[in-house]
Amino acid sequence: MPFALHERLAADTWTVKDLALCRVLLMNDKRYPWLILVPRRTGLRDFHDVAKADKGMFLAEIDHVSEVLKAETGAQKMNVAALGNMVPQLHVHVIARFETDETWPKPVWGLGEAVPYPPSEIGGLIERLKKGLLG
Amino acid sequence: MPFALHERLAADTWTVKDLALCRVLLMNDKRYPWLILVPRRTGLRDFHDVAKADKGMFLAEIDHVSEVLKAETGAQKMNVAALGNMVPQLHVHVIARFETDETWPKPVWGLGEAVPYPPSEIGGLIERLKKGLLG
Repeated sequence: MPFALHERLAADTWTVKDLALCRVLLMNDKRYPWLILVPRRTGLRDFHDVAKADKGMFLAEIDHVSEVLKAETGAQKMNVAALGNMVPQLHVHVIARFETDETWPKPVWGLGEAVPYPPSEIGGLIERLKKGLLG
Repeated sequence: MPFALHERLAADTWTVKDLALCRVLLMNDKRYPWLILVPRRTGLRDFHDVAKADKGMFLAEIDHVSEVLKAETGAQKMNVAALGNMVPQLHVHVIARFETDETWPKPVWGLGEAVPYPPSEIGGLIERLKKGLLG
């Protein structure tokens, strides 16, 4: 079965880039610089479900995305999480946090309402992220 | 500087076991089977801060703890997260989730109040987890 992005992830995000293993998505919520990695494999749900042969690349891509997003945004803290209670396709949140952001120091999920990016901002942001991400 | 567990983590948890890299803690909250891994290194805060030489072991220990806790509890879903906005020492939450638990399908943080284990339960639980964890 070929890889297909879960419709809920597709609806909430913009596609940034495919790395060797993961598709990188940008959450359409201007309150936080927030990327999501989805391994382009089928049948994965839990963080530990990634195949042994893919694990090194999986961790390397999480770290790379986190480092690039931190450098791009100057964030004080990165939040990394694989929750997936509602969307049954493994995806890893990488969220840049600031002491001035809306929900700091709480986790971001379930608090307040997403603020979509205005069309004038989204293209430039995706381009900058795409250039920053290697591979 | 030798490794020392952050006082907030020490206050909220019981120690289960030291693996090769991480100390494994049990969150003192009976609502969820909830383990925390803390790499026994100094100066780490973000998930990507783990030294290259430790990364393979770091991921292997997260996976092992998650698999053991899932098997031990029969959980429907594992939540894995490195947040650390409040406690500036890298720690990874591994939480066993059930469709019947108090906050499902939401993330657990910040909702409701922790329910400490009764003294009669804690010893046996730690023993079972200790036996399940290799290394």
